[in-house]
Amino acid sequence: MEQTDEVASLSKKAQKKAERLSKKMAAASLSTAATAGGDLAEDALAANYGDVPLLELQSKAITGRKWKKVSELDASLNGQSVLLRGRCHTTRGKGKIAFLILREAGHTVQCVFQVEDNVVSKGLIKYINSLSKESIIDVEGTVDIPSAPINGTTQQVELKGRKVYCVSKARPVLPFNLEDASRSEKDFQKAEQEDLQYVRVNQDTRLNNRVLDLRTSANQAVFRIQSYVSMFFRQFLVSRGFVEIHTPKLIAGASEGGAAVFSLDYYGQPACLAQSPQLHKQMAICADLGRVFEIGPVFRAENSFTHRHLCEFTGLDLEMEIKEHYFEVLDILDELFVFVFDGLHQHCSKELEAINEQYPFEPLKYLKKTLRLTFEEGLQLLKDDGIELDPFGDLDTASERRLGTLVKEKYGLCVTCVVNVVSCLRVVQILFVTFGRYNTDFYILHRYPLAVRPFYTMPCFDNPQYSNSFDVFIRGSTLSKMSSKLSLSLTSVKGVEERKFYVCILFLQCLAGEEIISGAQRVHDPELLTSRAEACGINVKSLSTYIDSFRWGAVPHGGVGVGLERVVMLYCALNNIRKASMFPRDPTRLAP
Amino acid sequence: MEQTDEVASLSKKAQKKAERLSKKMAAASLSTAATAGGDLAEDALAANYGDVPLLELQSKAITGRKWKKVSELDASLNGQSVLLRGRCHTTRGKGKIAFLILREAGHTVQCVFQVEDNVVSKGLIKYINSLSKESIIDVEGTVDIPSAPINGTTQQVELKGRKVYCVSKARPVLPFNLEDASRSEKDFQKAEQEDLQYVRVNQDTRLNNRVLDLRTSANQAVFRIQSYVSMFFRQFLVSRGFVEIHTPKLIAGASEGGAAVFSLDYYGQPACLAQSPQLHKQMAICADLGRVFEIGPVFRAENSFTHRHLCEFTGLDLEMEIKEHYFEVLDILDELFVFVFDGLHQHCSKELEAINEQYPFEPLKYLKKTLRLTFEEGLQLLKDDGIELDPFGDLDTASERRLGTLVKEKYGLCVTCVVNVVSCLRVVQILFVTFGRYNTDFYILHRYPLAVRPFYTMPCFDNPQYSNSFDVFIRGSTLSKMSSKLSLSLTSVKGVEERKFYVCILFLQCLAGEEIISGAQRVHDPELLTSRAEACGINVKSLSTYIDSFRWGAVPHGGVGVGLERVVMLYCALNNIRKASMFPRDPTRLAP
Repeated sequence: MEQTDEVASLSKKAQKKAERLSKKMAAASLSTAATAGGDLAEDALAANYGDVPLLELQSKAITGRKWKKVSELDASLNGQSVLLRGRCHTTRGKGKIAFLILREAGHTVQCVFQVEDNVVSKGLIKYINSLSKESIIDVEGTVDIPSAPINGTTQQVELKGRKVYCVSKARPVLPFNLEDASRSEKDFQKAEQEDLQYVRVNQDTRLNNRVLDLRTSANQAVFRIQSYVSMFFRQFLVSRGFVEIHTPKLIAGASEGGAAVFSLDYYGQPACLAQSPQLHKQMAICADLGRVFEIGPVFRAENSFTHRHLCEFTGLDLEMEIKEHYFEVLDILDELFVFVFDGLHQHCSKELEAINEQYPFEPLKYLKKTLRLTFEEGLQLLKDDGIELDPFGDLDTASERRLGTLVKEKYGLCVTCVVNVVSCLRVVQILFVTFGRYNTDFYILHRYPLAVRPFYTMPCFDNPQYSNSFDVFIRGSTLSKMSSKLSLSLTSVKGVEERKFYVCILFLQCLAGEEIISGAQRVHDPELLTSRAEACGINVKSLSTYIDSFRWGAVPHGGVGVGLERVVMLYCALNNIRKASMFPRDPTRLAP
Repeated sequence: MEQTDEVASLSKKAQKKAERLSKKMAAASLSTAATAGGDLAEDALAANYGDVPLLELQSKAITGRKWKKVSELDASLNGQSVLLRGRCHTTRGKGKIAFLILREAGHTVQCVFQVEDNVVSKGLIKYINSLSKESIIDVEGTVDIPSAPINGTTQQVELKGRKVYCVSKARPVLPFNLEDASRSEKDFQKAEQEDLQYVRVNQDTRLNNRVLDLRTSANQAVFRIQSYVSMFFRQFLVSRGFVEIHTPKLIAGASEGGAAVFSLDYYGQPACLAQSPQLHKQMAICADLGRVFEIGPVFRAENSFTHRHLCEFTGLDLEMEIKEHYFEVLDILDELFVFVFDGLHQHCSKELEAINEQYPFEPLKYLKKTLRLTFEEGLQLLKDDGIELDPFGDLDTASERRLGTLVKEKYGLCVTCVVNVVSCLRVVQILFVTFGRYNTDFYILHRYPLAVRPFYTMPCFDNPQYSNSFDVFIRGSTLSKMSSKLSLSLTSVKGVEERKFYVCILFLQCLAGEEIISGAQRVHDPELLTSRAEACGINVKSLSTYIDSFRWGAVPHGGVGVGLERVVMLYCALNNIRKASMFPRDPTRLAP
């Protein structure tokens, strides 16, 4: 008991010390904080502005002062004195008045400083004019509702400023201006009409200086939406009895038997980074966890330079026991994404507005019960329009030519060879216009040919050429903006049979939009699993711990993998996945 | 519009097909599912048991049957017919009766099959006896409340079984029995008294066959608790305006300038795996996200074989803007962990019970307002008991000997040299017994010497030998079980000065328990950051994108890193961190 008291008394001492410091600090107001002051040494109001010395920011005291957020400023605070911390977005001083736009997390408010006896000195106006853009500043002032409506700031009130202190100075020259980085295409068009010259900040410059780029209102919104997507994803799954797991990213040998892996040395053993949590999440099902999900990084060493590939992205994975049918997975998936989309719609209106301001887009259309089409039904849709594709038939030059002729007759498009991806793309763009009127931007294609799915995919009970697999598509309507879409999709196709399937799949994918989710029922039988792996040319030995997991009794199960960045990109109709990744990684980008 | 109808009609076709199949399946009851049947060909009830052919499990039909969970079985279902899927935990047949314990996700129920005309045949009893342990089976029967209380199962009702089908056969010989893997020390003691011989399943055997090991009730509970910890962590932070981020794990050069990294080749560039999201989460703060958190893998290539080190673990990281003082971070942290602990206490009583059954432990004691001690106050506590440690003073043989003499006088322990970690450990064990009566297993030490913290740690405003840093400790009381604790802690200590600090810190850590959280205010000033990195011998060039982030204006900020597995291990007082990692990675373990 003595010790407890002792500790308590020690803690009390520390507390008292802190209190004494606080009082001292408060009594001195902020004058101590402004020792660097303005350069008008005789200014009686010099304590109202200046640079805060670093020492003051090293947890010197707890003063009890409260900072408001810029986003909280509205008419209800009219006449109240507030303290704000944010960035010096822009300044504009003329004579006895200075305008400063303060920005905090994408929200902006105009602060007006006007010379007034015993309140605002000329020195303060001069000090404001000396502030570099993006510097962190503290501003104290009174909330005011101006007579004229306010343009160019997010908050619809002004601040009548009295004090301003610089907490952290930005370099006077920045890689680019936030204003330039925040402009929309509409702004550029308008500028052209008015003969103005705006600077365009290109993607590489943005990504090289990502910390600056992320400060735009649109980017602030993108990453808040990304955060919400994971949150809704989890919330829904937890409510359905899913357990969150963390599987190793460091694995022995080659992940899933694929080639595009990052290899490394693990204490003398060859290892690689997991291309997905596929094998381990299935092992978690074999370990009786019933329903699991994981949110974590996924590594792909592919040489893909498309608008939709990254070398490292965030996988949203789930895996679940199924009793009878892979539709049980689709049912979960369907409800899950309706929940996510509904959640974004309800909770992120401000964020969506901010993105729309810079990158205009149509809201995502989706049905409460997601449309499901089989691969065969998809082909039938094409056939009904005269485009006949036989995934099991011949793919000779003659048949390709026939198809080309048909497409030309029907859509007036000259296509020399359908397998040529560029012409294929043009065809499907037309097809999309013809077919793309389902009143949904979100739907499911299932029963894919087995040959184009991974070895662990369960074949269909009635036809082993098909599989209990599915892809989920989003936003066919943005296709036309994404002309690079198909440019590399055929690189991974090896055999002639796969090539035939891929032609059909490319048609359907373009018809459907962009794939964001892939999933399937998995093979839970160790013998079938082994023979499927062998048939796919995979070294079965390297998969022994995985396959052994099914030898101790395994429930039928299925699951899906989702790309978080893709969901965000396509929900917001962004034109490049790098916009949805905070610090993107591609074959040439490893920094920042 | 035509297309829409077309799609609808296609979908309807598919639906009708599925319905037809369902009806067929339901009409045939499960007889089709049992074609492999019992081996009594003349058994009129042969359709009531047998192996389900794989084809039936390839999403053949949706029959509309509903499965109950074993955990849902209670007296309220008395007399109802239910269908269950689970594992054949044990079987015991004698003549006309068979007992089968069915296990699902750690929950068990006893199923009794008794030969009865037109209901249960002898063939069924024989079939049950043929089932291998861990096989997945479907059981149909009626819930029954037996007259005598039930021992050895989690559910307090029985099932009067009628049908049993095997969905997936386990190999007859398993690496170990689940019963053996589930025994507690108490069971072993009891067995010894009763002269029984129980098999002990050692840790390597468990981890080599982790999928099997994870099926024990205790392990099922551990990973559900792990899932809850992340959930409460997130829930709290989201409620406080934190944004969830995902930072890259692939980074250029050497992570944080440390040596213990996994290196790899990134398209010809040298890269490594992030040792923490430290640099990027700070960059997210520089990018105006205000408050961020991340849950993701963290990689450490250290050669540590202790009970508390892993090469890959799950980091719970947060970083936040601070207005004045690092206590703002401590306040969040304090509330956060009380929220997590309260949440576990409220929602996981069954899981905690299951763990306690096999690994008994005392519930964690914590205060609603967490105790905070400075490093100096900690030393003062020791001094008050006659153990004087001066982190800035000499550490010569004479002073070590003096300390040793003191310790001997006071505790009757012979300590030749305090810096010798083994003797140090014995001393602190005694110290713990003396001091460890704060009525809390959870508290904070802060104001650590700067020399033992990373370069990005903010020095104290009043004494640059100390820093605005802190560690959070949990469960000193489990220390005595963890004798390997300190064995390697001094390996990373280089200079003499650091060595002195470490002696003090080791004392305090042992006094306090195990560290689970480290955090600090960070240096937000680019000049100070550069000079601190240089002082710590770090190649500043390799950190240029990080340091540059602070040149465009940076708010004061601080944050913490928490190890998820450590939280789970110490909350549940498990004796090894591998028990809290689903598929642990250490220097010799890269599989499964």
